[in-house]
Amino acid sequence: MTTPTDLHQRMRAKRSFLCVGLDTDLRHVPEHLRQCEDPVFEFNRRIIAATAPYAVAYKPNLAFYEALGPSGWRSLQRTLEIIPEDSFTIADAKRGDIGNTSDLYARAFFEQMNFDAVTVAPYMGRDSVAPFLNYPGKWVFLLALTSNPSAADFQYHTDAGQPLYEKVVRTATAWAAEAPGHLGFVTGATRPEQLGAIRALAPEAFFLVPGVGAQGGTVSAVAEPGRNDQLGLLVNSSRGIIYAGSGEDFAEKAAEKARSLQLQMAPYFADAPAP
Amino acid sequence: MTTPTDLHQRMRAKRSFLCVGLDTDLRHVPEHLRQCEDPVFEFNRRIIAATAPYAVAYKPNLAFYEALGPSGWRSLQRTLEIIPEDSFTIADAKRGDIGNTSDLYARAFFEQMNFDAVTVAPYMGRDSVAPFLNYPGKWVFLLALTSNPSAADFQYHTDAGQPLYEKVVRTATAWAAEAPGHLGFVTGATRPEQLGAIRALAPEAFFLVPGVGAQGGTVSAVAEPGRNDQLGLLVNSSRGIIYAGSGEDFAEKAAEKARSLQLQMAPYFADAPAP
Repeated sequence: MTTPTDLHQRMRAKRSFLCVGLDTDLRHVPEHLRQCEDPVFEFNRRIIAATAPYAVAYKPNLAFYEALGPSGWRSLQRTLEIIPEDSFTIADAKRGDIGNTSDLYARAFFEQMNFDAVTVAPYMGRDSVAPFLNYPGKWVFLLALTSNPSAADFQYHTDAGQPLYEKVVRTATAWAAEAPGHLGFVTGATRPEQLGAIRALAPEAFFLVPGVGAQGGTVSAVAEPGRNDQLGLLVNSSRGIIYAGSGEDFAEKAAEKARSLQLQMAPYFADAPAP
Repeated sequence: MTTPTDLHQRMRAKRSFLCVGLDTDLRHVPEHLRQCEDPVFEFNRRIIAATAPYAVAYKPNLAFYEALGPSGWRSLQRTLEIIPEDSFTIADAKRGDIGNTSDLYARAFFEQMNFDAVTVAPYMGRDSVAPFLNYPGKWVFLLALTSNPSAADFQYHTDAGQPLYEKVVRTATAWAAEAPGHLGFVTGATRPEQLGAIRALAPEAFFLVPGVGAQGGTVSAVAEPGRNDQLGLLVNSSRGIIYAGSGEDFAEKAAEKARSLQLQMAPYFADAPAP
């Protein structure tokens, strides 16, 4: 079990709020690993070893493992076993279903796989989120304002001056009154101008901010409006780190990218003891 | 590949628009099957054999298989292999992610598992839906108005007189102009009063209507407002059928329930040739 205080301590120790997205696509695994018995796991193992000094969290996107069928699930389980104990783990699943079904997804991610957190889609409302949110000690990151170009299609649907993504943040914050700190929001780095407004609605919540790197966002553009007093941010990069190189030195290239992002994050911990 | 015309022909042949939800929970598999090597598959095999005369579609909810880890995926793949050729198959997955990720989910469900259709969540907008919608010959059922009590939390969020679920139906219908007939909507049986309004917005689309049975909806309450000229409906029951019995006769009990629903559907095919 990881509390918000625990996570902030780990962040201060590493002077980092970097989350590495393990969106491992077999088609992009470098040639020299493809003959391994489990190329996806071997790729992840090297990426994790190379980036662990700079990252506080890892976020496998479930789609990349599901696309491989049962062998993908085994690669994911093996990957989870070697993520360092002091790292936070997020299942990027974007699930959400009627209560009895969300309950099973929660079991899958929190018990079967022992993730610390899961991303959840809000469309179906409270009873679709509650089974995740009520899981003792586990965290939910609810989609609020996403990083993709089409986010505006529905997330800006505005009722009485309140766009849908704000309604989601305000409403869900009330649901989480009994588990404060364990409900966070996904707020895309590609829309920094809205981050401040979302922070005002949820001053205590952790934000998981995807979209830095391949999608175009930058650390400084999101950290200023998105941070809170404690910091309260995890900034994710997936493709920008794990596919920084495509040859035998892919892990070194990934480490360089992760280190470069961590260096942009270090100034936010200027008051922390030297690592 | 199944076209809307194909599906209507199968429906007329069986005088049924019943979809059986294979939400198979290992904890509810009857005692006498638990010693099998693959109890979930054995349960599904008997349910499918018993209900096939009355059903035109099967809809496994992915959560129930994911909760079991890699063995759950094997049970699901084995189940798909024995669903009769003349049945339509729907992956109840409620996925939706940025484009490159939705693309992988589409591969997982349409290639790895060869489902005919998948349920998709609309929150992230067009680019999250397009990879499913653009898959040649495959179908999408997009969540519009869901059957769960909390559907109203966000789906009724109203902009310029247009609730979110109507905005989803109207907007997505425009996306599907190039693949008409392959975009359907999930519209819960528990809200029949809204079905007519959704039908008016999407006169050609198939509706997948969950919530009959355990959740309280009835066939007649949804068929009248929800149908179109061709019929254009699949009504799903999961727990109401598959857990109708809990003993050794569970498959017979499931058949009885499926037959009872099919008998309520038969009058809508009064003009079809006798089966």
